[in-house]
Amino acid sequence: MGKIRIGIFGFGKTGKVVANEFLNDSLFTLAWVVRKGQNDHHKYASRLLGYEFDAGEIFSIEDIDDNFFIERPVDALVDFSDSTGIYLYKKAAEAGIPIISAISKYEQEEMNLIKSYAKLTSVLYSPNITLGINVLMVAAQILQKIAPHADIEIVEEHFKGKKEVSGTAKRIANVLSLNEEEHLNSIRVGGIVGRHEIIFGMPNQTIRLYHESISRAAFGQGAIFAVKYLIGQPPGMYTMETIIAEMFRQNIPVY
Amino acid sequence: MGKIRIGIFGFGKTGKVVANEFLNDSLFTLAWVVRKGQNDHHKYASRLLGYEFDAGEIFSIEDIDDNFFIERPVDALVDFSDSTGIYLYKKAAEAGIPIISAISKYEQEEMNLIKSYAKLTSVLYSPNITLGINVLMVAAQILQKIAPHADIEIVEEHFKGKKEVSGTAKRIANVLSLNEEEHLNSIRVGGIVGRHEIIFGMPNQTIRLYHESISRAAFGQGAIFAVKYLIGQPPGMYTMETIIAEMFRQNIPVY
Amino acid sequence: MGKIRIGIFGFGKTGKVVANEFLNDSLFTLAWVVRKGQNDHHKYASRLLGYEFDAGEIFSIEDIDDNFFIERPVDALVDFSDSTGIYLYKKAAEAGIPIISAISKYEQEEMNLIKSYAKLTSVLYSPNITLGINVLMVAAQILQKIAPHADIEIVEEHFKGKKEVSGTAKRIANVLSLNEEEHLNSIRVGGIVGRHEIIFGMPNQTIRLYHESISRAAFGQGAIFAVKYLIGQPPGMYTMETIIAEMFRQNIPVY
Amino acid sequence: MGKIRIGIFGFGKTGKVVANEFLNDSLFTLAWVVRKGQNDHHKYASRLLGYEFDAGEIFSIEDIDDNFFIERPVDALVDFSDSTGIYLYKKAAEAGIPIISAISKYEQEEMNLIKSYAKLTSVLYSPNITLGINVLMVAAQILQKIAPHADIEIVEEHFKGKKEVSGTAKRIANVLSLNEEEHLNSIRVGGIVGRHEIIFGMPNQTIRLYHESISRAAFGQGAIFAVKYLIGQPPGMYTMETIIAEMFRQNIPVY
Repeated sequence: MGKIRIGIFGFGKTGKVVANEFLNDSLFTLAWVVRKGQNDHHKYASRLLGYEFDAGEIFSIEDIDDNFFIERPVDALVDFSDSTGIYLYKKAAEAGIPIISAISKYEQEEMNLIKSYAKLTSVLYSPNITLGINVLMVAAQILQKIAPHADIEIVEEHFKGKKEVSGTAKRIANVLSLNEEEHLNSIRVGGIVGRHEIIFGMPNQTIRLYHESISRAAFGQGAIFAVKYLIGQPPGMYTMETIIAEMFRQNIPVY
Repeated sequence: MGKIRIGIFGFGKTGKVVANEFLNDSLFTLAWVVRKGQNDHHKYASRLLGYEFDAGEIFSIEDIDDNFFIERPVDALVDFSDSTGIYLYKKAAEAGIPIISAISKYEQEEMNLIKSYAKLTSVLYSPNITLGINVLMVAAQILQKIAPHADIEIVEEHFKGKKEVSGTAKRIANVLSLNEEEHLNSIRVGGIVGRHEIIFGMPNQTIRLYHESISRAAFGQGAIFAVKYLIGQPPGMYTMETIIAEMFRQNIPVY
Repeated sequence: MGKIRIGIFGFGKTGKVVANEFLNDSLFTLAWVVRKGQNDHHKYASRLLGYEFDAGEIFSIEDIDDNFFIERPVDALVDFSDSTGIYLYKKAAEAGIPIISAISKYEQEEMNLIKSYAKLTSVLYSPNITLGINVLMVAAQILQKIAPHADIEIVEEHFKGKKEVSGTAKRIANVLSLNEEEHLNSIRVGGIVGRHEIIFGMPNQTIRLYHESISRAAFGQGAIFAVKYLIGQPPGMYTMETIIAEMFRQNIPVY
Repeated sequence: MGKIRIGIFGFGKTGKVVANEFLNDSLFTLAWVVRKGQNDHHKYASRLLGYEFDAGEIFSIEDIDDNFFIERPVDALVDFSDSTGIYLYKKAAEAGIPIISAISKYEQEEMNLIKSYAKLTSVLYSPNITLGINVLMVAAQILQKIAPHADIEIVEEHFKGKKEVSGTAKRIANVLSLNEEEHLNSIRVGGIVGRHEIIFGMPNQTIRLYHESISRAAFGQGAIFAVKYLIGQPPGMYTMETIIAEMFRQNIPVY
């Protein structure tokens, strides 16, 4: 079987790391990268990332016309650009190419668009696509049901420069029906890459679930995980969380 | 509906705390306590624990004859004594009284006996009966399946005087097929009540599951949880772990 | 040499635990305990705490007259009552008896009174008298000087029922000149006895100082530590923090 | 005043990161880098690290002759190469150039050589030159003196591929007179950059000191800290630990 062909939207700090993870994994071949502006136009992402071979030709968004996805076919499209990227790949959705988006936040109009794509192809959208965070999110929801009287608090730690509250922490608060103002604590110090903790306090015992990010490459690994899962799935809207929840179900220990 | 009548075997350090939890919970009435020796014979456990009412009359093991469980009927029998306690309540099993045992370790002969009881009534046996530890144990097994390439290490911390390796930690190592010598780390310092940590290390992220014990009352709460579950169940062998695993299954988030 | 004679003001939850620590330590003899009301009047604290000997006769505050401290001499007076206790032992100060107070908060008038005592005898006042918290407080101030560019955050965790922000955490924020609103994070869950964490975040590394309370007996141990230090010291105002700072100075490693 | 001129030995994984930190700091100018082999000979370290200016000309060890340090004068020499690097810069020591070495381990012969340099110039040698680890090391020694009855354990966590026990953790065990076999616990999982924890367990409280590495740039920052301290100091042997201990002494809080 041939390699899985990947097209990536976005070549910023995270996009580069994600491209690098696909370049490093022999299951995949990086077909192309679309980025804003004319920088590095028609160079190869592989070269810019220090590899000695050509892969991931870089295109500008102006290069995308009706034939782009037909002339440069891929098996999955991965979007780490921004919320406007989605307007560019309607043709890919129509061609049935599975789409993975890890954009932080979409407006309503964009959410409507992505849902319309999900009628044509399989679409996975998760603002935080790392395996670990989604494991935490699913486990926390189960724990809350098993120990309904436990008090729950969320602590998130990130580098000093991160202005807003972690979207992931807000999402965790949301799925646990916790008021963000009261139960979400943000620590901003130094260069911490990212740490999320969910504390379940009971009268005589405490359970803590931690996720610590070491590098942004975790996003690339999450995208790889998502691509493998999505290929071959029927059209529809998917999230990492629903996939992980399904994996929980299939892996309950049997005695 | 009347209160749930409880009989307890064992009135040592943990047994007392467990009795106290049942005395504190208005769902239950403590019918009697059986302990070794003649100490406090026919006194009330409630009085010894500082309550102003009579509950939990204390019997010696010599008091147990063929009619004991008929004359002093209970809805569940909870055993926090030692591995020999099981020889005393065959008649309870024959009478169909649900049995909860939290004995640390049984020899083979005793395991055979407990299994024979499980043909007559519902029997739950868990050396560590706390909710939290069993949640950790089930979650860890699922995570290992979801992230098969993660490196796993166990760290357990207890008070300086605890001589042996935590049986709970050994059980965790066992269900995760980890070699105890290599992957189980024991810390013995000061007065730490009990802390278990399971670390899942991946190249770009780390997941940590922590359980911290605050007081032995967690065992009493675990027993209460077990009694509520067990009453009404068909005969058979149960463990906290299988109950928690089943609760995981029933509480997978639905989207 | 005879044992060190101790008098205690206060026999509430913490006072009892403190009395128990002194009863347990063969260096000391508990002479008496003064408590509010007429409860347990002229009983022995030792008996109420389960000992089989008489020590710590219990007096009501009405029993204190001009001769109380002369007729029942002690080598140190330990106050775990409340902010009004201080009005009762002026005569003790005049008699030169060292005084240890661990009251949470004094009003200005009471602070003036305690300072007047400090002209007559050695007086140690620390709202949090545990060794560990004071070690944290001193170490944190030094670190802040050594790494002036580090971002600092404080996290304190306590049981759900604790209403106010930890006074200890506020004191830590104060000595580090950190705005409480911005840099102090309070977690209230379950039955956590008490945990304080000070995080120093630098661009490429993080230092964390943790203090975890296991039981209130730590206050008794702190009082024992303070009594031993204070006996023989000249009149003046002392705090655990200044003692610990001095111990830091004397124990800087020499190479 | 002009910039501080730096020469670096070593341009491996850590050497590159250290060079980068000096290039990024406007107080310094990177004069040259000496590396093994002929790779990148006479290129500029700055260019290889992505800067748009020339700094840090790269020399091979074969280029070092008697005049090297005279013709290319620097204000400090920083060695992140290997244990043999020291044989190459005798002339620098004779010229009174301050030397900072962060080599993991020297044999006795090399230790003798470095000590002979310390008679001619100021020499700082620390296998772990990060600020944080040395702060931990000094604080731990003081705590051990203040709380002599505390049980102490060390836990170090690093990436799966790290074969040997952390040299830093061994050094901590050593200064605390702890048996490595008994009190040092090594965790090897995933991609953890580096974490050291020292636990002080007392009967009623636990103190934990943590150091977490985020990136190797901490070594560069440590070298910058050391250079600033060392310039202007008299000849002699220095370590980061002694400098930090001295800073502890000068920063004991005054009340």
